[in-house]
Amino acid sequence: MSEALNQFKQPLLIQLETEMKRYIEQHVQEKSLRESMIYSLEAGGKRIRPLLLFVTMASFKKEVDFGAVQVASALEMIHTYSLIHDDLPAMDDDDLRRGKPTNHKVYGEALAILAGDGLLTMAFQLLSQSQLANDKKLLLIQLLAETAGSSGMVAGQVADILGEGQSLSVEELIAIHQRKTGELIRFAVLAGGILADQSQQTIADLAQLSTHLGLAFQIRDDILDVISDQSVLGKATQKDELAEKNTYPGLLGLAGAKAALASEMNQSRAIIRTLEKEQLDVTLFEELLELFSLEEKGVKK
Amino acid sequence: MSEALNQFKQPLLIQLETEMKRYIEQHVQEKSLRESMIYSLEAGGKRIRPLLLFVTMASFKKEVDFGAVQVASALEMIHTYSLIHDDLPAMDDDDLRRGKPTNHKVYGEALAILAGDGLLTMAFQLLSQSQLANDKKLLLIQLLAETAGSSGMVAGQVADILGEGQSLSVEELIAIHQRKTGELIRFAVLAGGILADQSQQTIADLAQLSTHLGLAFQIRDDILDVISDQSVLGKATQKDELAEKNTYPGLLGLAGAKAALASEMNQSRAIIRTLEKEQLDVTLFEELLELFSLEEKGVKK
Repeated sequence: MSEALNQFKQPLLIQLETEMKRYIEQHVQEKSLRESMIYSLEAGGKRIRPLLLFVTMASFKKEVDFGAVQVASALEMIHTYSLIHDDLPAMDDDDLRRGKPTNHKVYGEALAILAGDGLLTMAFQLLSQSQLANDKKLLLIQLLAETAGSSGMVAGQVADILGEGQSLSVEELIAIHQRKTGELIRFAVLAGGILADQSQQTIADLAQLSTHLGLAFQIRDDILDVISDQSVLGKATQKDELAEKNTYPGLLGLAGAKAALASEMNQSRAIIRTLEKEQLDVTLFEELLELFSLEEKGVKK
Repeated sequence: MSEALNQFKQPLLIQLETEMKRYIEQHVQEKSLRESMIYSLEAGGKRIRPLLLFVTMASFKKEVDFGAVQVASALEMIHTYSLIHDDLPAMDDDDLRRGKPTNHKVYGEALAILAGDGLLTMAFQLLSQSQLANDKKLLLIQLLAETAGSSGMVAGQVADILGEGQSLSVEELIAIHQRKTGELIRFAVLAGGILADQSQQTIADLAQLSTHLGLAFQIRDDILDVISDQSVLGKATQKDELAEKNTYPGLLGLAGAKAALASEMNQSRAIIRTLEKEQLDVTLFEELLELFSLEEKGVKK
């Protein structure tokens, strides 16, 4: 990662971690619940969704203030709850996440379900109490519920589970991932635009951008599952194939998946260049795109 | 139940059912997810929380409008999600709920977890889009998150699970139930007062009332578990004892539990009479209290 993005993100991610932990410690008295929630929030991850929100906002030359950190915290809480529930034995049954035992392996299934429920609910509590104007709070609460819920991420997870063991078309696979992973990425990018007071037209362009970024992110994830080993990813690999999951490399071949990734990246760059005419500073955004390429983990292209 | 309360509640509960189903059908495209969510919402129940909200609002001579029906729908979605998750094998492991197979027995565990996540998220989506003024929307979103989340109902569920097999004091048992069941009842009563534009002082009195009602509700539930059989309750009975759950009859004896119930009911009535001086019409409220007594199910006192 280049120096500019690194310098930009370090203080913001520290604020993010601090705010998430502060909010939980302030509101959760039940010790084991608090520990279970914090365990998964602190289990690492690149905080790609908060980072997308921060970069989008800053690219419109808007200072990333504490209100934005709170919105990003709510978003990361939603993402984290979804990982906890996805890892449960009844779902993907994963023992490892980011190189650490999954929540239910440490705290048991009951507490993992409840920690997920707690984080999901807390995201809306935090948004409702955030330092934003009331109209923005409501807009973001509605957008987060739409993108995270049963018309968005939750629906994508259902479709993914129902699709296991069946052979899907590429279109069907895309439809799953646009909801399962794409919707929260859409929230991140749109929230950045909303917090930067952008016009409806720009918000529409950002929605387009987020669709390509979301697909790029998922295709890259599928490719890494095939070509990496566990020590690099910090979770079980080749697991998709074992679970008879439909993946981009599975449907398109490895070369085809890499070509699809390149196509989504190119379309993302094209939209970013369009937005440059609308006063978007593209420096950070172009650096951020490197996180979506295969080079980030030192993997051969 | 008396005629007045019956006539009051019938049209409102029909509006409630209609709105919950309409909202899900409008927003959930994924068929099995939609069915699973609707299955548990329509599995019956007395809609005691929505009813409390409606009665509180109407007792202040405020017309129960569509906005109030939407708030009650959000509340019932939260209550329903909590039942779906509580019934899971990792939690209470219940096969029957209101005389019907529980969600995971019909749709499988994965879909039950996701239907719960979907209903939880949808409650906030519905509130954010409801026909209320922005300041009321935000107040109710924050209150619902606080009462339902990891400082409220979710924390109570954690405490209940951790308390199984341990011998608790009555104070500890009360602390569990004030969160596990009491907090959503608090939301119902407070939301009724907020929607009826009541003063801070009246809202504080309503909070007191809701504490007594919440405890009465739980004590009654525990007593019914001891003295009823499965055909009456529509769920497994004597289950608390088998699970080594702490209950009021277990700690106080059956007579002691009945005395505690009577005490909570008397304190509720005393607060309602105080509120009568503040223009509260007590007719519906006093009839509603019968739902909290042991006579409702035709059980001998």
